[in-house]
Amino acid sequence: MTETNASSGISRLATADADFSARLDHLLAWEGVSDGEVQARVAEILSAVKERGDAALVEASNRFDRLAVADMVELTLDAPRLRRAYEGLPDDQREALAQAAERIRLYHEHQKPESWHYTEENGTVLGQQVMPLDRAGIYVPGGKAAYPSSVLMNAIPAHVAGVREIIMVVPTPDGVLNELVLAAAHLAGVDRVFTVGGAQAIAALAFGTETVPRVDKIVGPGNIYVATAKRAVFGQVGIDMIAGPSEILVISDGGTDPEWLAMDLFSQAEHDEDAQAILVSWDGEHLDAVEAAIDRLLPTLDRHAIVRESLSRRGALIRCRDRAEAVALINRIAPEHLELSVANPEGWLPEVRHAGAIFMGRYTAEALGDYCAGPNHVLPTSGTARFSSPLGVYDFQKRSSIIHCSAEGASTLGRVASVLARGESLTAHARSAEYRIKT
Amino acid sequence: MTETNASSGISRLATADADFSARLDHLLAWEGVSDGEVQARVAEILSAVKERGDAALVEASNRFDRLAVADMVELTLDAPRLRRAYEGLPDDQREALAQAAERIRLYHEHQKPESWHYTEENGTVLGQQVMPLDRAGIYVPGGKAAYPSSVLMNAIPAHVAGVREIIMVVPTPDGVLNELVLAAAHLAGVDRVFTVGGAQAIAALAFGTETVPRVDKIVGPGNIYVATAKRAVFGQVGIDMIAGPSEILVISDGGTDPEWLAMDLFSQAEHDEDAQAILVSWDGEHLDAVEAAIDRLLPTLDRHAIVRESLSRRGALIRCRDRAEAVALINRIAPEHLELSVANPEGWLPEVRHAGAIFMGRYTAEALGDYCAGPNHVLPTSGTARFSSPLGVYDFQKRSSIIHCSAEGASTLGRVASVLARGESLTAHARSAEYRIKT
Repeated sequence: MTETNASSGISRLATADADFSARLDHLLAWEGVSDGEVQARVAEILSAVKERGDAALVEASNRFDRLAVADMVELTLDAPRLRRAYEGLPDDQREALAQAAERIRLYHEHQKPESWHYTEENGTVLGQQVMPLDRAGIYVPGGKAAYPSSVLMNAIPAHVAGVREIIMVVPTPDGVLNELVLAAAHLAGVDRVFTVGGAQAIAALAFGTETVPRVDKIVGPGNIYVATAKRAVFGQVGIDMIAGPSEILVISDGGTDPEWLAMDLFSQAEHDEDAQAILVSWDGEHLDAVEAAIDRLLPTLDRHAIVRESLSRRGALIRCRDRAEAVALINRIAPEHLELSVANPEGWLPEVRHAGAIFMGRYTAEALGDYCAGPNHVLPTSGTARFSSPLGVYDFQKRSSIIHCSAEGASTLGRVASVLARGESLTAHARSAEYRIKT
Repeated sequence: MTETNASSGISRLATADADFSARLDHLLAWEGVSDGEVQARVAEILSAVKERGDAALVEASNRFDRLAVADMVELTLDAPRLRRAYEGLPDDQREALAQAAERIRLYHEHQKPESWHYTEENGTVLGQQVMPLDRAGIYVPGGKAAYPSSVLMNAIPAHVAGVREIIMVVPTPDGVLNELVLAAAHLAGVDRVFTVGGAQAIAALAFGTETVPRVDKIVGPGNIYVATAKRAVFGQVGIDMIAGPSEILVISDGGTDPEWLAMDLFSQAEHDEDAQAILVSWDGEHLDAVEAAIDRLLPTLDRHAIVRESLSRRGALIRCRDRAEAVALINRIAPEHLELSVANPEGWLPEVRHAGAIFMGRYTAEALGDYCAGPNHVLPTSGTARFSSPLGVYDFQKRSSIIHCSAEGASTLGRVASVLARGESLTAHARSAEYRIKT
């Protein structure tokens, strides 16, 4: 029942196939390769920047980005420079970027957790105080993956959270600056930009140098060196999830235009050769129609070579038996992007346990969410939606527990704590509590 | 102005000292030693359990915990066994444990984030759906650090979050089971316990074996092997922060009984030799009185050897000039536990930017929070309160973005997305959005 189409190379699977589960596992498998050599090189860069600061940072940048700068002054951009980049954009781009930023800001305002407390009968107060981080570092990839939308998505939640200073790093291979990226940094509230990248940029943010201030958390995607460096400094600073390739799972009930669905799959597949686009339906004829649309439209794409590669390597059209099987596939895959291209998508929501973002109905193309709908496009990949969330305001805030015992409350709690502490043989704990017991 | 007291060995510092900043940095410095040898041993254990499952898990447990079991059946405890442990406790311990569990549950109920959404004028719906994890793994250290209170603190937030299955692992060196720990597991809603520990337990939880189900997130403290293993599997599963030694910073305005403060410092210092207890005051005579109380009470402690060691190595009595300097020290240290033993502690709260938990007023001994006040005692250590939070219900839930565009909304957003996507040369994104533009 399985076949490979000669045109797009996308796999056809059916849940009824005997080998379905094994084939799906094979398609989903992905491991970022961080071998011993990468780890050793990253460790070397980290310790060089930790020990020699700016000098090591400049050296590494000259080497890896093919620059010839003398000091960090040449790798620093201040707020006025970012504003000029914004003002210099063509009208349509400037307006589109501003509209996207405003919508992203509005959405993220809804995410702000509030401090709270409650008072018990005896006057004891318990609660939690929410505070923003002092300083956040945003990593933005350079070269072909330098996306202004990523700057908005990473920096705006930090700004909404009330972070005092937002530092951005972006490498400039061969010295090429991306004005759209700088304009986005201006809109998103970035305070300073350093044009450095790779493991050396992560080191500078994690440890601080003479020029680059140490930050409290580093977010943003990067290549295997960046990911390896982030894992190594985790604990010294906070980091976001380590991202794998981008993926989409589309569920179609057969009622959406096959060309729309083909283009939705393409929009995922065009990211890079590792990207994954999967469509699931219980309507076999509909799947044939989508495949025909894929074959017809693929040659018209600007990035058709990348799309063909990623569809043939990691893409799939999957026929399932019914809606229940589709739901089971959603929760098994735990996709980064889930498009519910079905009638009445609300009915599906309570059953969707794992997904980074859910695009509901035939009109909600994933691309709208990538840029301007409002929700964040930094999402858990490779099944990590099982345990992690979209990047949000909550990633740039932290909480402190608040405990204020009244004399009465301390006396009551002291009795309980004393018994438990003695059960753990921690008698100084017990005696500290017992001092507060009224006699 | 600095001196070392012969009795307790605790350091005396003053912010006025020329070398104050360097001495403080030296006292605060702490790095978990995870050298190449530890990493290599952990990598070996992880791959053995990943490849050979139960067999490797049993082998490692026999070896490291000095057991002689034949299979995982002997290392599995079910819910009825946990209930029996609870029912078999002495009355005072059973009641104290139940009261603590109930208060912890009540507090954590306040932390549940809610799903939310809003509807725009054109009918587009945006929001976020909050869901619990399917399965959580709780690591509980064995031997001398097997604390029933830790079981409550780690498992109850997962239970309140609505996690479907809570798995606990706890090593039993030489086969010794701790009935209080099992009783706490019963109270906290743990479903199953495996008596395994170390890197092998982390591997089993992260990858799953024939007997141990793969979990979505692993929380709980452990030794350097456990911490190294958690860092290695981070990304395959979620993990909590990697904990350093426990610490307290007490601020006293001079109005609290010196013996109470001495015992509060002891209650931190008795954990282990790396624990850190620091007291700050602008009242020099008061500091002298606290030091005298330390010297007087220290010999009366059950764990006086550990306390003396940790106070002399990492403890300090610090004289600052004024309240402002005390606040600056709080935010520089970003303590796990902060005791504000002052009149009107509420007035300090808005200025405390970084602290895991804040114990307010003279009656709120940290020990009350360790056991039964309600807030979690799993807190960010070693300055990580700069960017992380107490363990909470939010650690056992995750969010999915919700986007449901109306036809009108998709048309408006499609125009913006199209411009931005073309600016990033992602033309399949643009065309996917453009299909939804009304013409």
